[in-house]
Amino acid sequence: MEIPEINKDRLLHDLNAVSRIGLGEGGSVTRLVFSVHELRSRQLLVHLMNLAGLDVRVDAAGNVFGRLPAGRDAPAVLAGSHLDSVVQGGRYDGPVGVIGALEAVRTIKESGLRLPVPLESVCFVGEESSRFGFATLGSSLLAGDVTMDDFANAVDAGGTRLEDVLSSFGIYRENLASLKRDPKTIKAYFELHIEQGPVLEFKKKKIGVVTAIAAPSRFRVVFRGQADHSGTTPMEMRKDALVAAGYLITYIDEVCREYASADKGRVVGTVGAIKVEPGVINAIPGRAELQVDVRSITASSKRKVAGRIKQRARQIARERGMKVELLTIREEEPVALHPRLISLIRTTCEERAVPFEVMPSGAGHDAMQMAKITPTGMIFIPSVNGVSHNPTEWTDPEDICLGTQLLVETLIRAAHAEI
Amino acid sequence: MEIPEINKDRLLHDLNAVSRIGLGEGGSVTRLVFSVHELRSRQLLVHLMNLAGLDVRVDAAGNVFGRLPAGRDAPAVLAGSHLDSVVQGGRYDGPVGVIGALEAVRTIKESGLRLPVPLESVCFVGEESSRFGFATLGSSLLAGDVTMDDFANAVDAGGTRLEDVLSSFGIYRENLASLKRDPKTIKAYFELHIEQGPVLEFKKKKIGVVTAIAAPSRFRVVFRGQADHSGTTPMEMRKDALVAAGYLITYIDEVCREYASADKGRVVGTVGAIKVEPGVINAIPGRAELQVDVRSITASSKRKVAGRIKQRARQIARERGMKVELLTIREEEPVALHPRLISLIRTTCEERAVPFEVMPSGAGHDAMQMAKITPTGMIFIPSVNGVSHNPTEWTDPEDICLGTQLLVETLIRAAHAEI
Repeated sequence: MEIPEINKDRLLHDLNAVSRIGLGEGGSVTRLVFSVHELRSRQLLVHLMNLAGLDVRVDAAGNVFGRLPAGRDAPAVLAGSHLDSVVQGGRYDGPVGVIGALEAVRTIKESGLRLPVPLESVCFVGEESSRFGFATLGSSLLAGDVTMDDFANAVDAGGTRLEDVLSSFGIYRENLASLKRDPKTIKAYFELHIEQGPVLEFKKKKIGVVTAIAAPSRFRVVFRGQADHSGTTPMEMRKDALVAAGYLITYIDEVCREYASADKGRVVGTVGAIKVEPGVINAIPGRAELQVDVRSITASSKRKVAGRIKQRARQIARERGMKVELLTIREEEPVALHPRLISLIRTTCEERAVPFEVMPSGAGHDAMQMAKITPTGMIFIPSVNGVSHNPTEWTDPEDICLGTQLLVETLIRAAHAEI
Repeated sequence: MEIPEINKDRLLHDLNAVSRIGLGEGGSVTRLVFSVHELRSRQLLVHLMNLAGLDVRVDAAGNVFGRLPAGRDAPAVLAGSHLDSVVQGGRYDGPVGVIGALEAVRTIKESGLRLPVPLESVCFVGEESSRFGFATLGSSLLAGDVTMDDFANAVDAGGTRLEDVLSSFGIYRENLASLKRDPKTIKAYFELHIEQGPVLEFKKKKIGVVTAIAAPSRFRVVFRGQADHSGTTPMEMRKDALVAAGYLITYIDEVCREYASADKGRVVGTVGAIKVEPGVINAIPGRAELQVDVRSITASSKRKVAGRIKQRARQIARERGMKVELLTIREEEPVALHPRLISLIRTTCEERAVPFEVMPSGAGHDAMQMAKITPTGMIFIPSVNGVSHNPTEWTDPEDICLGTQLLVETLIRAAHAEI
């Protein structure tokens, strides 16, 4: 099989162009979903797809598709990722998969290779939950696995509701389902992504072949105590919401360490955000709100740990005469990727003699949603020091090029394969 | 002794006028120091003092004085408090003492009573630490017990430095000392204030005669861990700054409960504010900053508890491979009020047959600073449910009038007394 070679300079140049949008302190990148920076990055992508001569389409939510048609109208093989980022994140979480897929598709187009099915390079809107606490927004809408009720608690730090942003685009409860893409138009979905963890580097492997994705349970915990003067209120008369939160934060760390081993399901739990009111040095916090994220690739372990955390939150509140609210943000099940696609990526690595690791993904991805409507596979490339969601996130450019080259080959194989 | 009666309607009307400046959600009041609302409240006071025919003077920091001259130029008896508030505070913390003192002085003026010394009603700038983490600003400057170095860590949530605000008024390191008022111009200082605690209501007393003021030790604790992806970073590889903060928050509560009894010094400790970075649900907090407030009227107990908290912070950081910074915001010593003034207030209560309680103050006040340069006394009136720094802060209008009437009598006694 003749495999066209990617244009490495062009790939890295376009990745750099994306990195410059939302560049901040210490080389950090901030492109929150529906911010000016995120919108500009999608605009750049549309421009690049047009330059490449692809058929560009943007759906109502803002997902972008660059299509290379085939001689006949068959279900397409898709590849992509996202361009939005966390607050002060890195350069490659997302863009590697979007620009990598674009590079793969335009490489195939330029080679003149005729494939039996169309290819599409894709950018999903809002994969990160950093703004609204709601992850994989665009791919969820495309997969049709979301209702307006799921957005009930999705509010950003400024009080803007995700529901209101969507309705400003003309997306309402009534027409939400119309965003779902007909699964019959898709043959398979691939996502190239940085690992965002330390395994590949540690094991000196170049590629991760992903078997399953650990999905998060996310919820808000709100303790409501009593705001009082910090000087005049005796310790025994206090209802300090932050102290309650402190006990829950340390409990989450402890219970997750208890479930950290492989046989217990490798559960991880994090309180990423906390807000207290009134939030001043001379007042006892009357209200404390935590955002909790619990993940595992073992659904039963995740459920067990999330359940224990919620139970402990209620117990802390009861013991201290406070109220507590538990609000679900997102409840996802771990997702197994498609065996046929896993083996297809393995074969590609083996034939090229690329050292690879078959592994689960601790982080969520758009692939998680796509797997609900089409056979899905993921290709990981190494993250230096395992760091991600941080300005020091880094992947060797050679690894980016290698991953993209393997994506070219994988797409061609998938276009021909029976899946 | 003939004692003129205050004008209750006028007193309550003017207090209401102040309350409306900065009125917000649920009847809360927000007048942060040097905000537009706080400046407007001082402007209103100047207007009211002018209407009352007092000689009005505003010093470089913004402290306001309304003077009733005597026949001769003698050291004046001062009474006052502050008009700034916490975020979403109540109506009476501060204004009762400012408008109460104004009412007392204008009542005496109108009565035609000739006193041997001048009286001054005073409003101090920035008693609350809510904006800059720095309390009793105006009275500290007046007492001359502050240097520019004390402002080193005084920064508001928006990054504005207190030092820069002061320099915009023409107050610099070089001329800071010139703000000190010559103690020879003051005979005594009285402050009428709400209790902000539950004792008077619980004991069914109308007046608190304050003996001493518990002063705060305030410091910032900053844990620096490592911001990482919340899905891919195993529990054992984390340096979660919020988990470290959680352990410190619960420790502070525990150690203060240990020192809560009278024989241990009745120490109270509070973490009123917390900030984490990046502060999003899908990233492990790499940085957590806490603002800690520890108080007691027993200096040795306070020092012991603050020391143990700092030691524990270092230990937590060491155990978790993190860095910790401890930044002093304010270090104050508990202050004993003047025995002669305490007995003067007692006598006034006894002669009027008003039920009173001799008690310490858990909250800090401008009186704490004034006591450094002049004999100082404080009069408390009850707080319903002991609530303060909260929109539901309330004191019965009759109690406000009674406290103000007693202040009139106390000022007249003090003007005549040998102190």
